[in-house]
Amino acid sequence: MDNIRIEKKAESVKKASAALYTAATSRKNALLNAITRRLREESDAVRRENEKDLANAKKAGISAVLLDRLTLNEKRIGQMIAGVKDVIALPDPVGEIVGRKRRPNGLVIEKVRVPLGAVGIIYESRPNVTVDAAVLCLKAGNAVLLRGGSEAIHSNAKLVEIIRKSLKDVGLPAGCVEFIDTPDRKAVAVMLKQDRYLDIIIPRGSQKLIKYIQDNSSVPVIAHGEGNCHVYVDNSADLRKAEEIVFNAKVQRPSVCNAAEKLLVHENIAKKFLPVVSERLRSAGVELRGDPKTRSIVKYVIPAAEDDWYREYLELKMAVKVVKDVDEAIAHINRYGSHHSDSIVTGNKSNGEKFLRKVDSAAVYVNASTRFTDGFEFGLGAEIGISTQKLHARGPMGLAELTSTKFVVHGSGQVRK
Amino acid sequence: MDNIRIEKKAESVKKASAALYTAATSRKNALLNAITRRLREESDAVRRENEKDLANAKKAGISAVLLDRLTLNEKRIGQMIAGVKDVIALPDPVGEIVGRKRRPNGLVIEKVRVPLGAVGIIYESRPNVTVDAAVLCLKAGNAVLLRGGSEAIHSNAKLVEIIRKSLKDVGLPAGCVEFIDTPDRKAVAVMLKQDRYLDIIIPRGSQKLIKYIQDNSSVPVIAHGEGNCHVYVDNSADLRKAEEIVFNAKVQRPSVCNAAEKLLVHENIAKKFLPVVSERLRSAGVELRGDPKTRSIVKYVIPAAEDDWYREYLELKMAVKVVKDVDEAIAHINRYGSHHSDSIVTGNKSNGEKFLRKVDSAAVYVNASTRFTDGFEFGLGAEIGISTQKLHARGPMGLAELTSTKFVVHGSGQVRK
Repeated sequence: MDNIRIEKKAESVKKASAALYTAATSRKNALLNAITRRLREESDAVRRENEKDLANAKKAGISAVLLDRLTLNEKRIGQMIAGVKDVIALPDPVGEIVGRKRRPNGLVIEKVRVPLGAVGIIYESRPNVTVDAAVLCLKAGNAVLLRGGSEAIHSNAKLVEIIRKSLKDVGLPAGCVEFIDTPDRKAVAVMLKQDRYLDIIIPRGSQKLIKYIQDNSSVPVIAHGEGNCHVYVDNSADLRKAEEIVFNAKVQRPSVCNAAEKLLVHENIAKKFLPVVSERLRSAGVELRGDPKTRSIVKYVIPAAEDDWYREYLELKMAVKVVKDVDEAIAHINRYGSHHSDSIVTGNKSNGEKFLRKVDSAAVYVNASTRFTDGFEFGLGAEIGISTQKLHARGPMGLAELTSTKFVVHGSGQVRK
Repeated sequence: MDNIRIEKKAESVKKASAALYTAATSRKNALLNAITRRLREESDAVRRENEKDLANAKKAGISAVLLDRLTLNEKRIGQMIAGVKDVIALPDPVGEIVGRKRRPNGLVIEKVRVPLGAVGIIYESRPNVTVDAAVLCLKAGNAVLLRGGSEAIHSNAKLVEIIRKSLKDVGLPAGCVEFIDTPDRKAVAVMLKQDRYLDIIIPRGSQKLIKYIQDNSSVPVIAHGEGNCHVYVDNSADLRKAEEIVFNAKVQRPSVCNAAEKLLVHENIAKKFLPVVSERLRSAGVELRGDPKTRSIVKYVIPAAEDDWYREYLELKMAVKVVKDVDEAIAHINRYGSHHSDSIVTGNKSNGEKFLRKVDSAAVYVNASTRFTDGFEFGLGAEIGISTQKLHARGPMGLAELTSTKFVVHGSGQVRK
């Protein structure tokens, strides 16, 4: 029975997507404004529903970190509203002409940005994703089927109700946003088979969830993969800058995908640089693991296992390796890395260029922290996720990445010879 | 055992792809030149291998059409060589800077075109695809794993040998092009699971093959879907032009995906237009099927079943429907069409605009034949296929669609606050 309900919701989203497909920017912004208004007006009701989720979560004994993620207080609702306002201010990607040519036969061929259509979002715990993700999809002209974590089900249901009322406020079909409200995990499996109705699925959550979705979806998936990010310090690097970059990349926010997990150091500067940077990292609580050369220089570094070079720690750990030169660094990164974000610190222009050209990652840096890989930092104005795949979108994804294109051909009676 | 061989070939392609990833344009063009030279020198050998395939095919009693597709004669080898030369002349998409911005913190962020990496191509019968597809992949900096139809196995093996020798001629690893030479159909299933090594799979062939690949691949697929294309003739259309466009779209080459399968006609002009266009189509051998209104006007039109509106005929058949207005035409196309190519013939600018905006297809036309949906006609200079999906590439795919992008970030010591 649930299967049919989920299929019906996917169908409803697909149907409603036609109204959004051609909705004017002013109409979509009016919708987003209505959402901010209702969020403000109904913030007490949102918090009451959130209390139910929190009570259940406490009963189930979830961790303090997860409990915090689940919490919607006044400040967080305020942040949600501010986030929607930011999206209102962004230019509408739909209708943008990304290419135009006139052919010898007189045909004028334009490539125009259009909505994807119906987007599925599968996410975990944090209820603010309900609003953040839905609003980005709507601004890009897409209808959306949401599936949030079961622990946030009351909060999510209330937030979806607010969005659906706002859709009606501006005369758009409520079906533009549907929500799968069963806590049953099988619902995800059913959602993944709705290729008849959904154009794309974006998972946000643990690597385990994402891998499961990639392996089982018949709908195209844009996956946010792991971030096993590297900083390589070249022999010609300004070592003060290098220290700041390594420290920032590792320590500023260790739990996120663009934090550095690995440090590679040129052998000629290892004796000078490693003691300094290691001390700085250790004093911030970073556990250091290293190859034999690193350990011969810094005694408190514990041995790194082969597996360490592949791992995304997402915590205050870092593995360190001494390399012969930029070529070994590049080879190491391309072999062990996750192709997310990697940086070289160097004063040598040609080594920098080589690194940028040869490292096959979504974002490659010279002389900057990997922590900048982010839709806001890259100037996209928003972020629905960071893609580590190569098709459609790679790196931070903003509104444009929630669109497709079509060819619009203007003729005057042309036929093919 | 075969599974391991196929996996090894996928791994070999992935490994070799690093050499192509940064290969200069001159090197890639030298490779393509070497291929043309060897194709010319070894054309007799190619034909001898092709004779073996033809002999087997005749023994197996395949149709004259398929036998023709399988044949490589002097003329076709000449066409293959000319095709490679065309690709040499095309600009290299790799390295193109598609976006650039300077951030307030001084970071300069470029979005740069890079190769996808390792591409899998799965195709049927026509051996020229071996060269056409491989050459496009190579020019875009990609290594390629080929799996052709078993009936062309001798021809394909020889063509791949020529390409691999050419790779060695210019000092690139032969592993840049690998070929699955087992006729066992299970080989495809194994290839579809090589997501560790392949970045993308492009199927070329029947809808059945493509559907199988989409349903079973853990590698992202760019699918070439059906073409159930429409021409809608509006009440304000120039009926002479309309007749030419409909005739061209249906008759000029009925076996291809951008040929029109459906004709929609505004009710106000149906009595005038339908007899004329029907006679013209009938005289070219087109079997006409129609809705009751059409049949009340043109008596020899046979009844169309509900299923007809969904079908891609790929032959001299056309279904005809009288509609109330442009809105009904748009609704019909979005409901029954395959979102490939659809055209309106009209003298009314706002109806034209509405059609272009609301019809959700890879290519939408005003006053031109649907037959132009083609990489060459669109000025891409090449075509690896026509995508009917919305992710990554939609419509004719040229060299640029065989690439990904990466963000290249130039800093001077920036760290995140």
